[in-house]
Amino acid sequence: MPDNPETRTIEDAHAAFEKARNTPPAERSRWLHSIADRMDIHSTDLVSLAESETNLSTARLTGELVRTTFQLRLLGEEIQRGAHFQATIDHADSAWPMGARPDIRRMNVPRGVIGVFGASNFPFAFSVMGGDSASALAAGGSVVHKIHSAHPLLGRATSSIVVDALRAAGAPDGLFATIEGRAAGELLVDHPLTQAIGFTGSTAGGRTLFNRAAGRPNPIPFYGELGSINPVFVTPLAWDKRRDEILTQYVASFTNGMGQFCTKPGVLLIPRAEESYLAHLVGELLGTVQLSELLSPPLRQSFMDELDLELHEPGVRIVQSEQRGTFPSVTVLAADADTVIANPAIIRREMFGPASIIIFYDNATQFIELAGAFDGQLTATIIASDDDPSTPELVEVLAPRVGRLLWNGWPTGVTVSYAQNHGGPYPASTSSETSVGTAAIGRFMRPLAFQSFPATALPPALQDDNPWQIVRRVNGEFIAAPA
Amino acid sequence: MPDNPETRTIEDAHAAFEKARNTPPAERSRWLHSIADRMDIHSTDLVSLAESETNLSTARLTGELVRTTFQLRLLGEEIQRGAHFQATIDHADSAWPMGARPDIRRMNVPRGVIGVFGASNFPFAFSVMGGDSASALAAGGSVVHKIHSAHPLLGRATSSIVVDALRAAGAPDGLFATIEGRAAGELLVDHPLTQAIGFTGSTAGGRTLFNRAAGRPNPIPFYGELGSINPVFVTPLAWDKRRDEILTQYVASFTNGMGQFCTKPGVLLIPRAEESYLAHLVGELLGTVQLSELLSPPLRQSFMDELDLELHEPGVRIVQSEQRGTFPSVTVLAADADTVIANPAIIRREMFGPASIIIFYDNATQFIELAGAFDGQLTATIIASDDDPSTPELVEVLAPRVGRLLWNGWPTGVTVSYAQNHGGPYPASTSSETSVGTAAIGRFMRPLAFQSFPATALPPALQDDNPWQIVRRVNGEFIAAPA
Repeated sequence: MPDNPETRTIEDAHAAFEKARNTPPAERSRWLHSIADRMDIHSTDLVSLAESETNLSTARLTGELVRTTFQLRLLGEEIQRGAHFQATIDHADSAWPMGARPDIRRMNVPRGVIGVFGASNFPFAFSVMGGDSASALAAGGSVVHKIHSAHPLLGRATSSIVVDALRAAGAPDGLFATIEGRAAGELLVDHPLTQAIGFTGSTAGGRTLFNRAAGRPNPIPFYGELGSINPVFVTPLAWDKRRDEILTQYVASFTNGMGQFCTKPGVLLIPRAEESYLAHLVGELLGTVQLSELLSPPLRQSFMDELDLELHEPGVRIVQSEQRGTFPSVTVLAADADTVIANPAIIRREMFGPASIIIFYDNATQFIELAGAFDGQLTATIIASDDDPSTPELVEVLAPRVGRLLWNGWPTGVTVSYAQNHGGPYPASTSSETSVGTAAIGRFMRPLAFQSFPATALPPALQDDNPWQIVRRVNGEFIAAPA
Repeated sequence: MPDNPETRTIEDAHAAFEKARNTPPAERSRWLHSIADRMDIHSTDLVSLAESETNLSTARLTGELVRTTFQLRLLGEEIQRGAHFQATIDHADSAWPMGARPDIRRMNVPRGVIGVFGASNFPFAFSVMGGDSASALAAGGSVVHKIHSAHPLLGRATSSIVVDALRAAGAPDGLFATIEGRAAGELLVDHPLTQAIGFTGSTAGGRTLFNRAAGRPNPIPFYGELGSINPVFVTPLAWDKRRDEILTQYVASFTNGMGQFCTKPGVLLIPRAEESYLAHLVGELLGTVQLSELLSPPLRQSFMDELDLELHEPGVRIVQSEQRGTFPSVTVLAADADTVIANPAIIRREMFGPASIIIFYDNATQFIELAGAFDGQLTATIIASDDDPSTPELVEVLAPRVGRLLWNGWPTGVTVSYAQNHGGPYPASTSSETSVGTAAIGRFMRPLAFQSFPATALPPALQDDNPWQIVRRVNGEFIAAPA
């Protein structure tokens, strides 16, 4: 490895990891809280810097920062409960049916230095101290974050707050650091001390780095959240009952933040409808959308290119498009089911930005066939009544293709909780694991077993008296942590 | 994909998976028990067939079959407890601090068709119906197993018993099937319907298939258990107190089954000792070892080649070697710590078969430095007294390098239990996940969340009344299954 600043950053992160890896969860939780507290203190400055670099609105950015600091605190609580250790204790058992069993105890341990690549569209929640960084620190790892080129000033400012917060809380220097530039990012993926990667971004960029991680002399896990179309399936019954409401919510969801969400509903599947009715209502709805510039000039260019490609697919037409000033247009397209079934490329183009396509189906067979034409997705949504006859089959066809199934909702909201799952079959993600919620922590740990260890040599998580008071499994039985 | 028998086998396995994927765990458990019962009924025939193809002893093979059927039944019990679902329920919460939380519920679902490559050295426990196949079926997947070319007759006989047992228990045809030959194995890794691979075998073969799985248009997880040296570290205190006992157990462990274990102790690290004493005792011990032919001619050739390479490393010498008839020799080598520190290749050569090397260290610094010279291992062992002053640092250096740490034991026994971990940092395994024990099931599942689903559309594992009576997490609290 070359002797340059990035290499030293990674080496320092490794040294900090070694110092910190046995830190009790209560102490580590204080580190996460310290970061959250300092980010809250500096929220006005951070939001204003983010606004200047991303074109996102104050309200949106303020909400995103609330989400980000909430996430840090939730993960801090979670590691004190200790579910992420998956501490499992089998006492010695001479009557074990396959032959005497020794005392054996397993727990998850942190992997080490985690490389994190953030996204441009969530400058807080999926960036410097977003879900990947927070869960890597919660896991007990150290973090080297590659600052996104679309918000360098915010990246540096956030980094400085995080570094100060960790130092103030007593964490070892180097536990969190940032690097910049493409070459530095590649070095981060290649470096022998890097033990896993968290990534949120484009399918092309993510796949390139995934290949790099898999091609190392010792391959490392690459947790990439890449692209998703997030189709929304409307049953005939639901459409008959509340088509105006559905269209209104659809337009609100796909234009939210100018469509720059990985969970933007990119395809709406509805029974064949009067296109003049659609054009009229959609036109009205688009007229009320608050337009803004996209995140960055390259992203705008890429959106325009994708939209152009989509418009050149035979059978794809414009329902309505709204443009004001120099802002990019907000567009609803349409195509027919048989066209899409013959050419599924139409529903596999992400068009990251404010565009979405409506597909008209004529019968239940087409409806199900279209569901089967999607590849891996973060989400799919079913708009139906509870006893809709077509939904059981639809769930069966969609379940293998997605990470989250929604019912009568819209996919753009992604809550941070215990049950959340933000990931899905490729290309939605490279690992199927979630990058949001408490379950994200486990990605940055790996199991380690201790056999016949003396009590004094066992780590606290596996000692008989459970000094960390964590949830554990003992001889097969789950034992909740004492209250 | 070509229209050939293997392609149809994979398609049939996928169709069977689709039919079976919602099967309740109690029913699926009966399928696993049915397989175990039929293998037990045919145990005499199976063991005798295995003996004829592997050169392993009747006693060893009988014990291995007991382990294999125990494992099937244990996994059957495990899936009824339901920990593998990781069912997590967050009720809607309007007071959730980051903003109102919808009802969201997550569980693990089976990935689909799992390709399994067995090992030649465990013709039952890591072969046709070994840990990978059993955990894939337990997870809810279907299995296409590539029969090992070293035991084709046993492979076919076991397969036939498994297929009959599944049919008798009412499982859909095609849920388990076998294929043969290298080209068929490659097709299995490449096929779009294959969703994950379980592999036990050599580092070279495993890495080739890992690269293939990672290089697919949609990469799939490759759970490979590859090579391991399994070093054993003897502290000066322990050596002083019981050197004869240690050497006796060492020779018994590394020659067990002619050293054809992935957990064979390949390196023993001891304080510098009289080589004449060692040569004498080791010679006596090797004289009592029951020799036999190795698993297969290619494996014997490979062992001889590796041993030859090791003997050509400067500073490596023979302590004792025992040969009888046409059986391969059983050999103990030796080298000095400073030689190894300058040339770690000496302790990184697996020599799969009956050979192991003793390294002499002169001081505590060398002892720790040697520990740091190992790459990823399935196991490392510490032979010490409980309060040995050198062990805390040794544990710190070994922990990041291994999947299982043993204290005053020998690594060749691998119990099947809840806490077992058989895997480790690369090249011990390609994923760090265990291929043995109940935790192996999770490898063949992935998470899926349901948001705001009506009660009638939720899968049983996530319904409020918990019809499968499984362990779950509700609003963050762990709730054990009712007794």
